[in-house]
Amino acid sequence: MSTIDLNADFGEGYGDWRLGDDEVLLDVVTTANVACGGHAGDPTTMRAALRAAAVREVAVTAHVAYPDLQGFGRRFLDIDPAELTDQILAQTGALQALAAATGTRVRGVKPHGALYNAIAHHEAQAAAVVTALQELGGEPALLAAPGSVVAALAERAGLPVLLEGFADRTYTPAGTLTPRREAGAVLSTAEEVTAQALSLARDGQVRTTDGTVIDLPVRTLCLHGDTPGAVTLARAVRERLEAEGMTIRAAL
Amino acid sequence: MSTIDLNADFGEGYGDWRLGDDEVLLDVVTTANVACGGHAGDPTTMRAALRAAAVREVAVTAHVAYPDLQGFGRRFLDIDPAELTDQILAQTGALQALAAATGTRVRGVKPHGALYNAIAHHEAQAAAVVTALQELGGEPALLAAPGSVVAALAERAGLPVLLEGFADRTYTPAGTLTPRREAGAVLSTAEEVTAQALSLARDGQVRTTDGTVIDLPVRTLCLHGDTPGAVTLARAVRERLEAEGMTIRAAL
Amino acid sequence: MSTIDLNADFGEGYGDWRLGDDEVLLDVVTTANVACGGHAGDPTTMRAALRAAAVREVAVTAHVAYPDLQGFGRRFLDIDPAELTDQILAQTGALQALAAATGTRVRGVKPHGALYNAIAHHEAQAAAVVTALQELGGEPALLAAPGSVVAALAERAGLPVLLEGFADRTYTPAGTLTPRREAGAVLSTAEEVTAQALSLARDGQVRTTDGTVIDLPVRTLCLHGDTPGAVTLARAVRERLEAEGMTIRAAL
Amino acid sequence: MSTIDLNADFGEGYGDWRLGDDEVLLDVVTTANVACGGHAGDPTTMRAALRAAAVREVAVTAHVAYPDLQGFGRRFLDIDPAELTDQILAQTGALQALAAATGTRVRGVKPHGALYNAIAHHEAQAAAVVTALQELGGEPALLAAPGSVVAALAERAGLPVLLEGFADRTYTPAGTLTPRREAGAVLSTAEEVTAQALSLARDGQVRTTDGTVIDLPVRTLCLHGDTPGAVTLARAVRERLEAEGMTIRAAL
Repeated sequence: MSTIDLNADFGEGYGDWRLGDDEVLLDVVTTANVACGGHAGDPTTMRAALRAAAVREVAVTAHVAYPDLQGFGRRFLDIDPAELTDQILAQTGALQALAAATGTRVRGVKPHGALYNAIAHHEAQAAAVVTALQELGGEPALLAAPGSVVAALAERAGLPVLLEGFADRTYTPAGTLTPRREAGAVLSTAEEVTAQALSLARDGQVRTTDGTVIDLPVRTLCLHGDTPGAVTLARAVRERLEAEGMTIRAAL
Repeated sequence: MSTIDLNADFGEGYGDWRLGDDEVLLDVVTTANVACGGHAGDPTTMRAALRAAAVREVAVTAHVAYPDLQGFGRRFLDIDPAELTDQILAQTGALQALAAATGTRVRGVKPHGALYNAIAHHEAQAAAVVTALQELGGEPALLAAPGSVVAALAERAGLPVLLEGFADRTYTPAGTLTPRREAGAVLSTAEEVTAQALSLARDGQVRTTDGTVIDLPVRTLCLHGDTPGAVTLARAVRERLEAEGMTIRAAL
Repeated sequence: MSTIDLNADFGEGYGDWRLGDDEVLLDVVTTANVACGGHAGDPTTMRAALRAAAVREVAVTAHVAYPDLQGFGRRFLDIDPAELTDQILAQTGALQALAAATGTRVRGVKPHGALYNAIAHHEAQAAAVVTALQELGGEPALLAAPGSVVAALAERAGLPVLLEGFADRTYTPAGTLTPRREAGAVLSTAEEVTAQALSLARDGQVRTTDGTVIDLPVRTLCLHGDTPGAVTLARAVRERLEAEGMTIRAAL
Repeated sequence: MSTIDLNADFGEGYGDWRLGDDEVLLDVVTTANVACGGHAGDPTTMRAALRAAAVREVAVTAHVAYPDLQGFGRRFLDIDPAELTDQILAQTGALQALAAATGTRVRGVKPHGALYNAIAHHEAQAAAVVTALQELGGEPALLAAPGSVVAALAERAGLPVLLEGFADRTYTPAGTLTPRREAGAVLSTAEEVTAQALSLARDGQVRTTDGTVIDLPVRTLCLHGDTPGAVTLARAVRERLEAEGMTIRAAL
């Protein structure tokens, strides 16, 4: 593969509160996952993020989440699946209206945090997300992890799916992320991160925790921008990919 | 005039809480103002209201409000106008996505409670509402009171406006509602209410508090359904209008 | 045993929304579990419930819950245990200040809904509740189910525990409630409910789902008031207990 | 006067979000106004702020606010006065419970933002705050501006009041703050700010916008810590006061 998309989370503030350095990261990535009220993002924060993305011609996805501002969407909520579907529709719809007002549109839906983790294996919640995407009419594609239940269900339903990989997380031989609570879950040196980014982007492969190399056909890489160090790392990834001749381009 | 629209508020619950008797009122009115998260209405409550309206072929408007669940949108909030615009877009967008999923669409925007009262005279907040409607692209029309600042601004901006009257509230000679805190603000007998409804609907006129009759060219009447008595009254209004040969039909 | 406490949930409204018939139930029970902001209960709703309880000389407990108004505290939240402790302190503290202002005080803490169910077995969350009670200084006692992890931990910590039984729920031979999703979890006839209430209150025993009779030394019975039928049933329980010579009295 | 209290706002985060540099400022001030859920401050954020204050032996006040996280308590809310009283009790009570758990206690109540401004002149809301303080039993004192309606009502009610001045805001000849929207409302140079701090602290006087010097008998000065520049300025104020022989000590 010679082209790759780079995505990162955006607009993760609320009211007067901010998180991360959105402006800087918009020069690095090609897709911005914009918080839309679940874990962060009041309407005015959403508009600011959308406008910034529109100006830089960065593609936008709806960063949908459990309704849990206090927990930043990072804790599992045993929500009724039908209510989860409704949440995703409402959050995405709010962002769509603001996107239209700022000259852009919502091309994807990326579940956030604990929801992202849950739908890798939780059948009922994964199905609820797929139902929401069907009801959204097929335009926003699903961003999901290879091997996740939600990706399988969405593909079976004929929905567009954009598989994503993580440059800074290690993978098990089964192709899933090493849980964060385990040692060796996170890659920390720039060398390791950029090497894995290149392997994923160019070869569609990753070296797993037992040393074997497996196929992981991702079309977008998730980068982080919540600390100055993360932004530096994100920039290093982009530079390495470009140096190797890859084209960095929005996938949606 | 021989046709009139009847509108009422719907879906004003939150989570497990309910208010009013939505199902019954859907047989009486032709337009349902669906709460969309400001003063009431979580996503699942919204879907239930939308589905019920879709089944009865009742038109839907977004019942936008200050973000104030605890106060039910009934207290003035000195919100920054730009943030108010964003709120209206987000609330309406959320409802639009759920409406599309339930086979209907959002034809109007009706400000609720304290916001409705504020934009009758508050220039900056009224302009913020008009900006939101412009950014929504012109499809949802504004429901507003005759003589209100927001109606004037919306008309000047070339936006569709649906003027509404109240069958159970008295009017001053200036054509504005008598404030609730004043004596004689509310009509209580079925006879008074149905008579005023007929006068407004058929003649576009109302007898004001000083006895003079003024023109009030409304195309929809707002009815209430939050108490059993209110539903009975709403039904009486519809029956009287039909008995007088009026056609009850959604205006949007 | 010749005396028993009867408790029920109170003040489960929010803003303009109400649930159940608090006033009526206050003539039936001796302890009111007042919602304090987690699953229901804004400050004004809290004060109204506290004042009503104070007037009838009904004892008050803090009905603490996951912070989840939208879900009414009925869905499991994988909250960090330290944050759960803080939630319980804040919710109870808010109620304590309002209780002092209305001439009563908070004598117990009763976890609500999904939290109640979780701490029957979830060690970390149960320990978090116990920590909160320790930090509250020992005056509010814990209301808990016999055999629950939280009751065991609280007793081991030397905290006052008030064991409660359910008149309208069936028990397994292990002394735990039959899960609601299973058939036969709920007793529905007045005869069954009042019989179980009497057995629990007078004999400290219950006939379980396999027919065996086990000891269940409860000192309070939980009644419901969220439907007219529930209130009638609650009243029947009280009348039966009094007819059998039991004294109905607050345990705290 | 030879002693003065210095106060600043603390714990103004929510969930994962932070504002200002609490730790640094705790070396400068003697009283910390801790957000308690109105404009900021979830229970865990509250505990962290309380613990930090307790460790440094800094006195604590409850920084009560309109219930408005999204607006950070900075916009006027036309709340029913009785509901405002209940809000203040609930917010203060939550903080009191957490304070007791962290080895400190709530010595004062300081209204925040738009509420602070409103009760300088809004009779009904000012009276509601005073009612809350009466119901809190007289231990937390009120922090208020000299000449404000709320200070007058609290003094008339026999409640303890701690008058506060602002080192970095100019005063009108009437002894009230110059509104922020007017030119010259804020002092910006370190020299001006420290000079006014000294005048207020030592002499109980301030030079107003028309050049006259008036008495302003304040016992605490409000400093800011929300930007690095603000912290530097706060430190300069403290150093200047100490250099002039003043004792910096908590007033409550």
